[in-house]
Amino acid sequence: MLKDLIVSNRSYRRFHEDVPIDMATLRELVDLARLSASGGNTQCLKYIISYGLERNAAIFPHLSWAGYLPEWPGPEEGERPAAYVIILLDTNISKGAGCDQGIAAQSILLGATERGFGGCMIGSIQREGLRQALAVMEQYKIELVIALGKPKETVILDTVKNGNIKYWRDDQDQHHVPKRSLDEIILEPIRIGHPITEPPPAGK
Amino acid sequence: MLKDLIVSNRSYRRFHEDVPIDMATLRELVDLARLSASGGNTQCLKYIISYGLERNAAIFPHLSWAGYLPEWPGPEEGERPAAYVIILLDTNISKGAGCDQGIAAQSILLGATERGFGGCMIGSIQREGLRQALAVMEQYKIELVIALGKPKETVILDTVKNGNIKYWRDDQDQHHVPKRSLDEIILEPIRIGHPITEPPPAGK
Repeated sequence: MLKDLIVSNRSYRRFHEDVPIDMATLRELVDLARLSASGGNTQCLKYIISYGLERNAAIFPHLSWAGYLPEWPGPEEGERPAAYVIILLDTNISKGAGCDQGIAAQSILLGATERGFGGCMIGSIQREGLRQALAVMEQYKIELVIALGKPKETVILDTVKNGNIKYWRDDQDQHHVPKRSLDEIILEPIRIGHPITEPPPAGK
Repeated sequence: MLKDLIVSNRSYRRFHEDVPIDMATLRELVDLARLSASGGNTQCLKYIISYGLERNAAIFPHLSWAGYLPEWPGPEEGERPAAYVIILLDTNISKGAGCDQGIAAQSILLGATERGFGGCMIGSIQREGLRQALAVMEQYKIELVIALGKPKETVILDTVKNGNIKYWRDDQDQHHVPKRSLDEIILEPIRIGHPITEPPPAGK
């Protein structure tokens, strides 16, 4: 079921770096993004794939890892991503990506989870440094970096208490992520005259 | 497999309006969004659910349906969505949604597809009219409307030719969507010194 996949698809930041992800798998993941929705069907996103020590090492220094764990500089050697998918906006196609990069990233990460991998969408990127490291042309705007690998950490979903949404690590180094409740995020519009009513019976 | 679900999850704009989607199902779909990634884990999105003739009718006039089919005013009565999920940014939590609404919308639509429904992410919204119709407070910014229902049209994926990405309908009223090829959207960075190489063998 999709829900199992979505629950398993946590944001992982530590990996078994020695477990590779091959090019064919990475292309399959990008293909999932390709087949997903795109605003106005412009398909304005392009992708750079990275695996292998050399290119991965060119990407890693330009990423910030966990804003709420300031004392943690990111994964150490041996726990770094085995691969990356970098999502770019092709500004020759569209001036903005809308939320296409979110749609694409979700498809890619669900696909990775299905294959026993996991990852993290990283938006905190030193974009100019990464652009230079990979010689990305000005035509392309770096939107997101998806780090991928075989997860080497446990992520636990908690319930938000006192409005605190910061993730944290316990003394066993397990990563906790507080989530808001369903009742908190579903709003009821207050306008009189458009109450929510039971749908008409099938066949009406 | 996820790929089957992603391929089945097309943007549908015509529905069997008399096939309802109940509140429990709609809450399940929002729960899939709730359990999905959020930038900085802020979980800045809120949701309005609509089903039933009255509230749906309050939403419909504020949506634009198919930019590339200017002669088509949108689904006629009887073919309109059975339900909506409106995705809002709670500006008391965050000034911007990043691409969270894309992540959330993809989870919701994949969940709808798994349940035999389908839908369309609509970003072309007369936002002020919709805000007034549902008495949405200023605190919330309308990001996306997801139209949902049991699809009543056939959507066919084609390959982009001559750069033309506009969807179109054939004389049998089937909806065609051209998609770019995988080779068009995966770029190869040109910088010498960071070639893509085979990953190290497992266990290195």
